[in-house]
Amino acid sequence: MKYTDLSTVARLLITCPDRPGIIARVSTFLKDHGANITDLDQHSTDPEGGTFFMRLEFQTPHLDLSSKKLELRFGEEVGTPFNMDWQLHYAANLKRMAVLVSKYDHALLEVLWRWSRQELPITIPFIISNHPDLKAAAAHFNVPFYHIPVTADSKVKAEEEILKLCEGKVDGIVLARYMQILSDDFITHYPNKIINIHHSFLPAFIGANPYQQAYDKGVKLIGATAHYVTKDLDMGPIIAQDVVRVNHRLSAAKLKELGQYVERTVLARAIKSHVEDRIIVDGNKTVVFDLE
Amino acid sequence: MKYTDLSTVARLLITCPDRPGIIARVSTFLKDHGANITDLDQHSTDPEGGTFFMRLEFQTPHLDLSSKKLELRFGEEVGTPFNMDWQLHYAANLKRMAVLVSKYDHALLEVLWRWSRQELPITIPFIISNHPDLKAAAAHFNVPFYHIPVTADSKVKAEEEILKLCEGKVDGIVLARYMQILSDDFITHYPNKIINIHHSFLPAFIGANPYQQAYDKGVKLIGATAHYVTKDLDMGPIIAQDVVRVNHRLSAAKLKELGQYVERTVLARAIKSHVEDRIIVDGNKTVVFDLE
Amino acid sequence: MKYTDLSTVARLLITCPDRPGIIARVSTFLKDHGANITDLDQHSTDPEGGTFFMRLEFQTPHLDLSSKKLELRFGEEVGTPFNMDWQLHYAANLKRMAVLVSKYDHALLEVLWRWSRQELPITIPFIISNHPDLKAAAAHFNVPFYHIPVTADSKVKAEEEILKLCEGKVDGIVLARYMQILSDDFITHYPNKIINIHHSFLPAFIGANPYQQAYDKGVKLIGATAHYVTKDLDMGPIIAQDVVRVNHRLSAAKLKELGQYVERTVLARAIKSHVEDRIIVDGNKTVVFDLE
Amino acid sequence: MKYTDLSTVARLLITCPDRPGIIARVSTFLKDHGANITDLDQHSTDPEGGTFFMRLEFQTPHLDLSSKKLELRFGEEVGTPFNMDWQLHYAANLKRMAVLVSKYDHALLEVLWRWSRQELPITIPFIISNHPDLKAAAAHFNVPFYHIPVTADSKVKAEEEILKLCEGKVDGIVLARYMQILSDDFITHYPNKIINIHHSFLPAFIGANPYQQAYDKGVKLIGATAHYVTKDLDMGPIIAQDVVRVNHRLSAAKLKELGQYVERTVLARAIKSHVEDRIIVDGNKTVVFDLE
Repeated sequence: MKYTDLSTVARLLITCPDRPGIIARVSTFLKDHGANITDLDQHSTDPEGGTFFMRLEFQTPHLDLSSKKLELRFGEEVGTPFNMDWQLHYAANLKRMAVLVSKYDHALLEVLWRWSRQELPITIPFIISNHPDLKAAAAHFNVPFYHIPVTADSKVKAEEEILKLCEGKVDGIVLARYMQILSDDFITHYPNKIINIHHSFLPAFIGANPYQQAYDKGVKLIGATAHYVTKDLDMGPIIAQDVVRVNHRLSAAKLKELGQYVERTVLARAIKSHVEDRIIVDGNKTVVFDLE
Repeated sequence: MKYTDLSTVARLLITCPDRPGIIARVSTFLKDHGANITDLDQHSTDPEGGTFFMRLEFQTPHLDLSSKKLELRFGEEVGTPFNMDWQLHYAANLKRMAVLVSKYDHALLEVLWRWSRQELPITIPFIISNHPDLKAAAAHFNVPFYHIPVTADSKVKAEEEILKLCEGKVDGIVLARYMQILSDDFITHYPNKIINIHHSFLPAFIGANPYQQAYDKGVKLIGATAHYVTKDLDMGPIIAQDVVRVNHRLSAAKLKELGQYVERTVLARAIKSHVEDRIIVDGNKTVVFDLE
Repeated sequence: MKYTDLSTVARLLITCPDRPGIIARVSTFLKDHGANITDLDQHSTDPEGGTFFMRLEFQTPHLDLSSKKLELRFGEEVGTPFNMDWQLHYAANLKRMAVLVSKYDHALLEVLWRWSRQELPITIPFIISNHPDLKAAAAHFNVPFYHIPVTADSKVKAEEEILKLCEGKVDGIVLARYMQILSDDFITHYPNKIINIHHSFLPAFIGANPYQQAYDKGVKLIGATAHYVTKDLDMGPIIAQDVVRVNHRLSAAKLKELGQYVERTVLARAIKSHVEDRIIVDGNKTVVFDLE
Repeated sequence: MKYTDLSTVARLLITCPDRPGIIARVSTFLKDHGANITDLDQHSTDPEGGTFFMRLEFQTPHLDLSSKKLELRFGEEVGTPFNMDWQLHYAANLKRMAVLVSKYDHALLEVLWRWSRQELPITIPFIISNHPDLKAAAAHFNVPFYHIPVTADSKVKAEEEILKLCEGKVDGIVLARYMQILSDDFITHYPNKIINIHHSFLPAFIGANPYQQAYDKGVKLIGATAHYVTKDLDMGPIIAQDVVRVNHRLSAAKLKELGQYVERTVLARAIKSHVEDRIIVDGNKTVVFDLE
């Protein structure tokens, strides 16, 4: 990925009641203002009375309006008449993703590695952990590391501290195996902007020790699930999932080792979809307009 | 698949030089004539000077023109100005696919089975074989079966006979492991309308006995490739491919058995993409606008 | 698969407490009596105090004892001293598998098709259904079909009828989407010999309408699970599982269609492992000594 | 992986003409000398006149002989009588693998990362590159880095230098995208001990720029192949292969990015199989006794 290519790319995400003429209206508006659509993906739950979702990518160099005015007029002329929920993102504004982590390093390192190889178009303002263990890993990549311990007593204060660090500096949060349950209040600050990696193929093996559960149950596949964090633990909208084949020869420890590779891959894929503005949340589900 | 759902569906396939405004123009034209777009997928090889491909699916009940007039006006007002190569298909006109086969039954049976379960929206006017072996299989499914033997001497005559049978009754041809090489002349009658299943992951193991070649080479994956037939044997545009993992324990015969399941799956997928008008051929490659 | 190859093949399945010398003792016994071991696979849960599982395949032509005497002496000289649970199977005795089915035909047809192509080394003495719908499918393959309706009132009687039909004629039972819950009493007659295909990736989506559940939950993979039937509904030892990738574009009906292909594949694989004596049940889990 | 677990593990690899009694003889010998077999895997190309391959893993604490005497007597009493090609490895002697690399870092980093996480039981005495670019990466992991430039003129001298560095300090060599062709003479020093990762699904796209070739050909899967290096470029025995699904939306550059993740995974898997003594080379093919 050459980030320079992103400098002229804008992305429009739309959700609205389905009805004829949406594509014509939106694409005509963009054309009339000099935007060249280079990618369009849409989905309708039902052409009659369903919900319509669309993602457009367009080139900005020949726009005849400032971005501020473009948004104003799009809202007035298209968004409001069609009763749209819409967002406009500029790819050049790399999303600022804070990473929260505990002691496991595999998910964090995958994020850091892909980011450092310019395969994840994000910035990482800092890493926060409730343990000091991964400080050196963060230092390797020259990313600030804050150690904010969490106990039953200090939980409220710790979350306040995290929120304060994030305020104005963060667009979203990656839970790279952060072993603390975030409070409803915390989550409210980042709706559909906190991505968690769960070490099982949800909804199987919800809860603690999923690899041990998988081993005890003798399943033949183990998996991982990336999802947005909502108030219902492990039940937020699923973004990405994958599995790997296993067999009776593998111990619970070996399942865990294999599973961690699935976790890494699935988390990286979910972050990429999120920061490239490919995801629209539809209630407790996601519409993911992925390339692959 | 309920075929009744198809009665109001039309599909427009477009190839043209990329330039701003194509989506706006096409979608506005359709909207202005009462077509409700329910699916749109597009691809550009390069926004600057590249080629643009688009597939639209729309509902026809509220069209304000006959299909004949719609096509005429689309050509005049959109197709020609944008220098488009375009086709309009009506889903209700199930494509008539003749199946050519030799002695192996697996690919034929997969097609017949999926068709009889209404999972492949086609009609099968007849099956043609250079051997009599699969006559009973065809009879099971009440599909006419023609035995047209082929020898070095009779090849030209055999092809003429096949062409005559097909004339006016067939929209495309499936080679379900038909072990004869079709002449250039034959192929010219059905450009990008003859689908072959090759029993290897092309371009590996081009030619005869690919499973034996794979066994001798000790590969760890074997595969199959569905492609359009062109004058270059085994080199036409690839539509679909898949593989399955193998190991040293499997004999060449067992590789073949496993491989036949891949062949079946890949062929069925390719036919489905073809008859749902999801494929645009781009030189020696394909653009496949699949759902999955 | 050439069944003639099976005429000289015997298979020995062993479970016993792990300790040094098991392989040496068993292999020496077999060698001393003229058996040529052609395949050996083993697994130990723990070399210290664990359980040892082994599958041996050997050639019988040069045995110096009748099978009856061989089994007697193996029991006395090896089985009892090592405290073994063991079974000896002769591949030539194709397992007689009754198929129970309701209205869905996909799982039944997969079994019938693979069997008719000699890819599943079984005999099918008959098909039993609580509905008459699949009678013609059975007739196509010349397999007897018994229609035994089941209502809340007739359930006990229906099971008795099935058991009577099976008595002495059946080695195992395949539930190819049989939509009735078998009683504990019924299951007791065929311990670890009834194979069910469940239309989800267990333990996710236990219970009714798993594809609808999967759709509502917005999962990105759907799967199927083949397992032995035990008294705990949907909780018996898992034999095989597989998944397929899905996305927001697919309706619940389409998930079901895709899922049925996974069901077919997974069921066929499980039956094959079972009838080739590749499975040893270990409590609520399985050890599956598969080739692939 | 806890390397301490490896301290008591030995592995015996055997190739010999197949005949009855091999398993009994080997397992009895081991038992008689206090070795507890914990894993046994075998394969025969044909029970009549074929070649027999076997891998045994056993525990050494209760051996009644020194390793030297054990090997001597095994050779005299079992190896020679059965005409065996055999090797005995002790897992505690971690294989010393030098890594040769050019400018691409992905394969090298995967090896370093897995090694540093104790997931690859090897030591890495040093990294050698014909370019200076990856010096910092090596330094991060505290592995010595030697820059040995290669030009058409200096190639012979460069190889001599590499061989000298390796002499007595290296058990095998990993080519982690080393963009130089090794001479036949060099290869002769490490027969079946040099592992290369090739960036295509061999034998497709042999030669230069396979991702561009794959893009031009429009394949629907791209892959990677790990193989032992022999005098025939890109044609040595295949160890591991994998693929990933691609489509028309992906540029050649994006194919390359995706392909590099496959390369990393396949290379790591091949190295693991090699250093755990799971591979026996059979002419131009491999027998790989893997757990998964």
